[in-house]
Amino acid sequence: MKILSVKNEQIKHLVHLKDKRDRDRHKEYIIEGYRELLHAKSAGASIKKIFFCPELFLGQNELSLLKEFEAEKIECAEEPFRKMSYRDRPDGLIAIANQESKDTGELKKILSKKAPFIVVVESIEKPGNLGSILRSCDATGVDALIVCDPKTDIHNPNVIRSSVGAFFLVPMFQMDSIEALQLLKSHQLELLATTPHTDIFYDEVDLKKGVAIILGTEQLGLTELWMEKATLKVKMPMLGKMDSLNVSNAASVMMYEVVRQRRHANRI
Amino acid sequence: MKILSVKNEQIKHLVHLKDKRDRDRHKEYIIEGYRELLHAKSAGASIKKIFFCPELFLGQNELSLLKEFEAEKIECAEEPFRKMSYRDRPDGLIAIANQESKDTGELKKILSKKAPFIVVVESIEKPGNLGSILRSCDATGVDALIVCDPKTDIHNPNVIRSSVGAFFLVPMFQMDSIEALQLLKSHQLELLATTPHTDIFYDEVDLKKGVAIILGTEQLGLTELWMEKATLKVKMPMLGKMDSLNVSNAASVMMYEVVRQRRHANRI
Repeated sequence: MKILSVKNEQIKHLVHLKDKRDRDRHKEYIIEGYRELLHAKSAGASIKKIFFCPELFLGQNELSLLKEFEAEKIECAEEPFRKMSYRDRPDGLIAIANQESKDTGELKKILSKKAPFIVVVESIEKPGNLGSILRSCDATGVDALIVCDPKTDIHNPNVIRSSVGAFFLVPMFQMDSIEALQLLKSHQLELLATTPHTDIFYDEVDLKKGVAIILGTEQLGLTELWMEKATLKVKMPMLGKMDSLNVSNAASVMMYEVVRQRRHANRI
Repeated sequence: MKILSVKNEQIKHLVHLKDKRDRDRHKEYIIEGYRELLHAKSAGASIKKIFFCPELFLGQNELSLLKEFEAEKIECAEEPFRKMSYRDRPDGLIAIANQESKDTGELKKILSKKAPFIVVVESIEKPGNLGSILRSCDATGVDALIVCDPKTDIHNPNVIRSSVGAFFLVPMFQMDSIEALQLLKSHQLELLATTPHTDIFYDEVDLKKGVAIILGTEQLGLTELWMEKATLKVKMPMLGKMDSLNVSNAASVMMYEVVRQRRHANRI
């Protein structure tokens, strides 16, 4: 049965999931797009149903990918599909998935590895920043991203969109700061905080050991809680008049410094 | 005369400037917020008029700053002010400024300095990316940002907002790619492009000489035009499954590599 009307109940249900309260109530979220669904598939995300609109497919890939899913597949006309889509140029694939949360046991396993590489974001506000941090986490081989006390819903469609699918690739754990601190401390990780109040540059400390890069909010930076417990405090050169960077940019520079040090160490 | 009505013609005029066509027609743009106006002031931006709403001021700073401007100042009630504002929590300051473009002569002067540090963005689409690149340019002491064939208006209010005022601090030049290439080539700058098709990592080339970091679009990366003319082709480690980073994140990592090399060189 192809859906032709924008008033179809299933279309309405998906549109409601754009709202956090409805996502919370149904424990569901939206995944749109070929690349995103490709990564969701390979990560084994729990897909409930997929709406597709062949008129909007950009090529053959969309149909091949669709065939690989066992979830319910529902064909839509262009108008109802566009009503569900977040994009100016939708590619004809949009799905409803079940929210799943990873349990702390899995994080403990990761933390018990040799020299784990962790990123912590505290009270992040902007979905776009979380999404691009996820991309950088994937690129730099971060073992886990811990999201503490977020001010955005990690299942916000803009997180998934701006992560271009890295949402499904990076092990992500949500918890409060106290719990995260205890876990990281009990596994003897270095806690790396950035602050202007130090003389040590970010590339002058040893990041080859187990380390967690701690990132503060867009507005206010790190809270005292984290700053006090940090075992490494470093600064980034700030050569201009501003006193801060975009949080995902600062994060990426720090993450690539970890990679740089570990890459060079492995060559020796 | 305090403006009380949302239907006031001056309010309507500012609201129209949210639209690119109106910005182009009037050669004006909007600057909102204390920090943004502070940097606009210190950069000598041409401010036409400032609307202010004391009820929305967050402290004393807004009034002190306002007094420093010679432009026309217009008090507004909260309702019309909120109609103009882009923010959830406006701070009671919003201005109309004249669009000014820097001339190529100024860029030539910069390029004639010793070891200029330039960033080029090609066909950038997202205002938020351009804004956060501007922040990183300020932080890393970039001498000029060249914006080639942009797909976003550089006077888009979201560029200014996401730059947190760096818009006014970084010398920015808009031109087409051909002109930019000729200028950079004639001043013997290294043209640094990132590509997966090389064995050389980004931290293995000498970035202490005059260099322009060339950044491609969010979607498609660098065009052939720039890739062919690049004198340094480097790759960034991509340890995960994805094949790219957010453009502003990649940009920041490269910019901080330039700073790192130059900082270490100066110490020797």
